[in-house]
Amino acid sequence: MRRSIATVSLSGTLEEKLRAASRAGFDGVEIFENDLIGSALAPRDVRELAESLGLTIDLYQPFRDFEGVDEARLERNLRRAEAKFALMVELGVDVMLVCSSVAADSVGDDALAAAQLRRLAETAAPYGVRIAYEALAWGRWVDDYRHAWRLVREADHPGLGVCLDSFHILSRGHDPSAIRDIPGERIFFLQLADAPLMPMDVLHWSRHHRCFPGQGAFDLTAFTGHVLAAGYGGPLSLEVFNDVFRASDPRRTAADALRSLAVLEDETARARDREERARDGDRVETRVEPAGDGDRVEPRAVRPAPVALTRLPAPTRARGYAFVEIAAPEHSVHGVRAALASLGFRHTRDHRSKPVQLWCGGDARVLLNATDPQLGHTWSGDAAVTALGVDVADAEAAMRRAERLLAPPLPRRRDPAEADLRAVAAPDGTSVFFCAQDPAERQDWRSDFTVPADGDGGTAGTALAGIDHVGLFQPFDHFDEASLFYRFVLGLEPDDGVELAAPDGMVRSRAMSRGGAGPRIALNASLLGRGPYEDVRGGPQHVAFGCEDVFAVARAMRDHGAEPLRIPDNYYADLACRTDLQPLTVERMREYGVLYDRIGEGEFWHFYTPMLDGRLFLEVVQRTGGYAGYGSANSPFRMAAQRAEASR
Amino acid sequence: MRRSIATVSLSGTLEEKLRAASRAGFDGVEIFENDLIGSALAPRDVRELAESLGLTIDLYQPFRDFEGVDEARLERNLRRAEAKFALMVELGVDVMLVCSSVAADSVGDDALAAAQLRRLAETAAPYGVRIAYEALAWGRWVDDYRHAWRLVREADHPGLGVCLDSFHILSRGHDPSAIRDIPGERIFFLQLADAPLMPMDVLHWSRHHRCFPGQGAFDLTAFTGHVLAAGYGGPLSLEVFNDVFRASDPRRTAADALRSLAVLEDETARARDREERARDGDRVETRVEPAGDGDRVEPRAVRPAPVALTRLPAPTRARGYAFVEIAAPEHSVHGVRAALASLGFRHTRDHRSKPVQLWCGGDARVLLNATDPQLGHTWSGDAAVTALGVDVADAEAAMRRAERLLAPPLPRRRDPAEADLRAVAAPDGTSVFFCAQDPAERQDWRSDFTVPADGDGGTAGTALAGIDHVGLFQPFDHFDEASLFYRFVLGLEPDDGVELAAPDGMVRSRAMSRGGAGPRIALNASLLGRGPYEDVRGGPQHVAFGCEDVFAVARAMRDHGAEPLRIPDNYYADLACRTDLQPLTVERMREYGVLYDRIGEGEFWHFYTPMLDGRLFLEVVQRTGGYAGYGSANSPFRMAAQRAEASR
Repeated sequence: MRRSIATVSLSGTLEEKLRAASRAGFDGVEIFENDLIGSALAPRDVRELAESLGLTIDLYQPFRDFEGVDEARLERNLRRAEAKFALMVELGVDVMLVCSSVAADSVGDDALAAAQLRRLAETAAPYGVRIAYEALAWGRWVDDYRHAWRLVREADHPGLGVCLDSFHILSRGHDPSAIRDIPGERIFFLQLADAPLMPMDVLHWSRHHRCFPGQGAFDLTAFTGHVLAAGYGGPLSLEVFNDVFRASDPRRTAADALRSLAVLEDETARARDREERARDGDRVETRVEPAGDGDRVEPRAVRPAPVALTRLPAPTRARGYAFVEIAAPEHSVHGVRAALASLGFRHTRDHRSKPVQLWCGGDARVLLNATDPQLGHTWSGDAAVTALGVDVADAEAAMRRAERLLAPPLPRRRDPAEADLRAVAAPDGTSVFFCAQDPAERQDWRSDFTVPADGDGGTAGTALAGIDHVGLFQPFDHFDEASLFYRFVLGLEPDDGVELAAPDGMVRSRAMSRGGAGPRIALNASLLGRGPYEDVRGGPQHVAFGCEDVFAVARAMRDHGAEPLRIPDNYYADLACRTDLQPLTVERMREYGVLYDRIGEGEFWHFYTPMLDGRLFLEVVQRTGGYAGYGSANSPFRMAAQRAEASR
Repeated sequence: MRRSIATVSLSGTLEEKLRAASRAGFDGVEIFENDLIGSALAPRDVRELAESLGLTIDLYQPFRDFEGVDEARLERNLRRAEAKFALMVELGVDVMLVCSSVAADSVGDDALAAAQLRRLAETAAPYGVRIAYEALAWGRWVDDYRHAWRLVREADHPGLGVCLDSFHILSRGHDPSAIRDIPGERIFFLQLADAPLMPMDVLHWSRHHRCFPGQGAFDLTAFTGHVLAAGYGGPLSLEVFNDVFRASDPRRTAADALRSLAVLEDETARARDREERARDGDRVETRVEPAGDGDRVEPRAVRPAPVALTRLPAPTRARGYAFVEIAAPEHSVHGVRAALASLGFRHTRDHRSKPVQLWCGGDARVLLNATDPQLGHTWSGDAAVTALGVDVADAEAAMRRAERLLAPPLPRRRDPAEADLRAVAAPDGTSVFFCAQDPAERQDWRSDFTVPADGDGGTAGTALAGIDHVGLFQPFDHFDEASLFYRFVLGLEPDDGVELAAPDGMVRSRAMSRGGAGPRIALNASLLGRGPYEDVRGGPQHVAFGCEDVFAVARAMRDHGAEPLRIPDNYYADLACRTDLQPLTVERMREYGVLYDRIGEGEFWHFYTPMLDGRLFLEVVQRTGGYAGYGSANSPFRMAAQRAEASR
């Protein structure tokens, strides 16, 4: 299907918006009226620019407060509309969005509204313009798409149809399945927006917090499925009012938007396939008797021909972490090595050609790199998580999907002797390696670690159970972009997210996993883009290792001469009075800086290393009873302790 | 009255919060439990630190989900509470806030809840602790202070009272006047927070958007009046959950908070005076008949003795602009002079000792300064508005009030021959001069401009009617602080504010005036602290001059060889079809870049100069029919035009 985006979804001048949409690969745009009014480009110039960029102009929007008025106002509104129709001819766009009136002095007379909408369509016809009528979620009289469709049907003019906007329908909790009852040719336009569930007035929610499909809580795959089942064949178009996108680089936002739409189209196609199969199954079951006479019309034939949907390579289902790579500058590499050793890691091998060490602790593997893994030169920043190695079934397929989602591929093997690894750069700059078991060892990352190493390291109290999760701090402006990227490129599902009160401001946190299992990623960002975590270096990152006995690991760590992050005594005093933990247990926790959380029957025990080099820390966690969280109730105290540690 | 602040209202570690509160001049604090739990300071250390800073600890909070539970849970809750009571003894605090339960499994049985609250008070008594029970606006069963008071009264224990929180009461629209029916000694604590009216769930609103009294929409003077009339004599305490304050410098936030509370106390005192006078008047009227027998008890005598309130010097009522000062670096001073000249300003005089020029245009006066007016050295930034001269009746009184509101005074006269001007620095760094007519000329700013100047300048098409308003861009984090400062230091009232869609993000705008008249100030800030307006230089500023004929000024400007900011033709095409303006009028507007707004019968005509030196522009406005706005409907187009101009 054709893909469009409303200019209001992007920042900048109209010209910048068009260029960004074209660059990301959109086919068309909706022109938001104020973007045109504020532009120095004449309508014809806009048309020419769009054409030169390979973009069609699919919609002119919005036209407000038209219907339900007295005769004098109607005449004025029609004159106002005619001026816009003339302008649309110059722009080369033939559909105008008319949204349901919000005027306090309008009247709620369906027959009158339908007749006036018909007048509008009649007036538009000589200009070759059609009217797409949309029910705003906060419309004065019409706030439900089913109501809008009743008016359109009653008006009965071929130049009048409906515009369906997922936000206006789903934000109100309206059942979208009745969309299937609207003839596809009367759906003139489809606008798509997702949104997180937020407890606020729908107008405020709409104007500030819309986001791209996959970034919010709406089921847009099912929604789009209904629209396509009705026979709609126009563009999939994104209309997203979002305060952050309005202030971000439009090229980046446009890429984020296209990524979102590509997955939505793909998922809609897969859902349709499933629906078809289910229906075909039904048919086989229910139509066994009167063996065909050859003239029987298949029900399929009366359905509109399904519109062709662009598919992506099958979703990647990352299975867990092959490794996490930490880059450390020379002055802090010793500290990182010591921390790993204290948790029982051993330096087992070195890379055959690069200054990269492999450290193994139980089933957890950490690569310690002295260079920037993307650029090759010596790492000069703070110690940081620079790459994630994720286990996948088919690295080539994962790579194809990632590239279709506009993920920048990283350069492939430079040395013929090295493994031919597949990797892309995530929006936050982290390298993501797709790691498959490869019998021929041509693509197995392990095959590059051929050099026996010094064997430095410690002895674990108990073997680590692998990498439990990785915490990555995101720039405020790109939190949703990163969330969508990791979700769709690695096949993870986001949780509902939490807001954490850090000493220097609120931190937004969202974890992603595969049904609660790895590879788990916790994305964090400063809620307002302020505070010390928003400096040029970015906020803290961490790697959490799982284990079966957090106290055994903690004890071994102390035996190794290392101390955990110090948690205040006040924390344990509170814990003792609000839980049923035994005093001896609490005392042992205090001794080792272990924190505790409980959700239902699930329990979570965890401790942290001190901050290594200002930005990176390690965590050890123990999950019991099916605990699926991340101990976020303790995060404010962890952040306070880090803050206190930093100011010591 | 004593003034307190909850630690949750400030950012940083607990120690930093206490130091900031003390530094601003607070008498006490509420300890928010998580701030203590996350602190490395033991309760005794906190107590000692507070004492050494001259702070009392007035409240420990919050204790949650206590009442309406079964017997087993009650016992657990009492054990939990006892641990907190013991801790409170160490902290040296004797009131604990218990908020109404939000637990889904609690029961709504008033008799049970009252009995359990009584048990809690009985348990607290041996520790010397009293319980202040608060109705959360989103409590499961108790969400109204009147309900909380019924439970407290029913429980009937001297160690149990209510805590009143203005947010929980006013956000629900509950009538606060019934507070007067609560005996003052049963009001154990008073928490104050303001909030802007926001269309969202009350919990979300409370957790993110509270602000200090005077920054929101609640009538806290009336609210506090009710509480004092009931006989409350405890501290006035601010409990403000605000995302911005959580991420800002706590010292600055604490000063903002104290400023807010000082005005609230003063305004409450003034309102009480008015109430007293009205009552005394009533009494005289209603008690004329039975001439006293000497034994009659005055009703006044049964009222609790009114608590003493600290007063401020009388509110300053700024009357308009004496002048606006623009500082310009050498490379742009010519451009600023040319722009002023093109609007009909003339360079009439120079300062007797400083490189400051006086430019007069009709009733508008602009000082053009080559130096930083606060530091004296050569101005090296972009051209900017650096000082506002406001006309006041009594400069000394205005200065005394400003200093009581923690406004930093600027150094006074250095040279005995100069006028002895009074000025303070606003939070955004702008100098505010209090200008009074002074027969002795000792304090008249004009008396320093003794040197006849070159008379450079232009001829106005019509005399300017003075300075209509000044637009000042604020750092995102200090918008509310600046708003409160200008409001209370100059005696201005804020309007409801608007959000404007700029090409690079949303801009928040709030105008302040005296009943619609001058001195008007429009404060602007980036809604999310992002976009090009948030760089180190700050966003654009402007000075708008009033006039009687905007076209005459525009024509004279063109005759002078200067061009207005170019407004796109698309704006005029839209204007022609949505208004009744005559085509010839629209054409004339297009020719001179004049924009138009209409609200009711009021009309607004205005045009802009191009940006002078990247950050400063001038505006000329004409108001008719009582128009009281600022043309904000046009602001997005003005900003788009400036954006286009900047990228040319």
